[in-house]
Amino acid sequence: MSILYENEVIYIQKEESQIPWLMIFTKKEYKEMSEVPQNIKLEIYTLLDVIEKEMLLYYTPDKINIASFGNYMPHVHWHIMARFSNDNYFPEPMWGVQQRETLLSLPSFEDFATRLSLTLSSKSLLNL
Amino acid sequence: MSILYENEVIYIQKEESQIPWLMIFTKKEYKEMSEVPQNIKLEIYTLLDVIEKEMLLYYTPDKINIASFGNYMPHVHWHIMARFSNDNYFPEPMWGVQQRETLLSLPSFEDFATRLSLTLSSKSLLNL
Repeated sequence: MSILYENEVIYIQKEESQIPWLMIFTKKEYKEMSEVPQNIKLEIYTLLDVIEKEMLLYYTPDKINIASFGNYMPHVHWHIMARFSNDNYFPEPMWGVQQRETLLSLPSFEDFATRLSLTLSSKSLLNL
Repeated sequence: MSILYENEVIYIQKEESQIPWLMIFTKKEYKEMSEVPQNIKLEIYTLLDVIEKEMLLYYTPDKINIASFGNYMPHVHWHIMARFSNDNYFPEPMWGVQQRETLLSLPSFEDFATRLSLTLSSKSLLNL
């Protein structure tokens, strides 16, 4: 999997899917979010906020979905997804029952990734 | 649905389920988390952190799950769930495919709710 962005404490990967779907991982492994140091928690929440705003602007999705499970892999990671009313699972979560089979026509993910990387790199998010 | 805790900006409800499952709603309706004012965002993250720690202490679950979807109801709300390796859906999310049919033997939810309410009330979480 390719890393879209990283800094000292986290990295961001793309999840292969019909929809725009990113995952934020902590570099050091923690099982639960409450075990993550406060500055890294805030970093994750800030990144979720920045990614959500960029997804809303770029894709104009019908809804943003956010989740952190880690049942298969107990290493804190967050999912953030842009959802569309005609995507294969909407209004179910992406882990739910498939509702239909559609071909979504979305703007280039590569352009989104470039734009997001620039935004993240231009902001001094981390205040360690 | 009964309200376990509330303050000026949020309220917490129980979701009926086999597992301990709480939901945090903003009192004012926002569609997306990035539209929520910063102080209420921080309030939600603090509450998730407090609830997670209380769930870990009280239930010693195998994993905590956190999610915010809002596809059916576009009003920001967060799910926080204590998961057990033998619950009906583990390791799938609670929205996934059911894995088994088990009767969980858990300590009293009422005691947990009382304990959580006391913890939340004793902390001056909100700094409006």
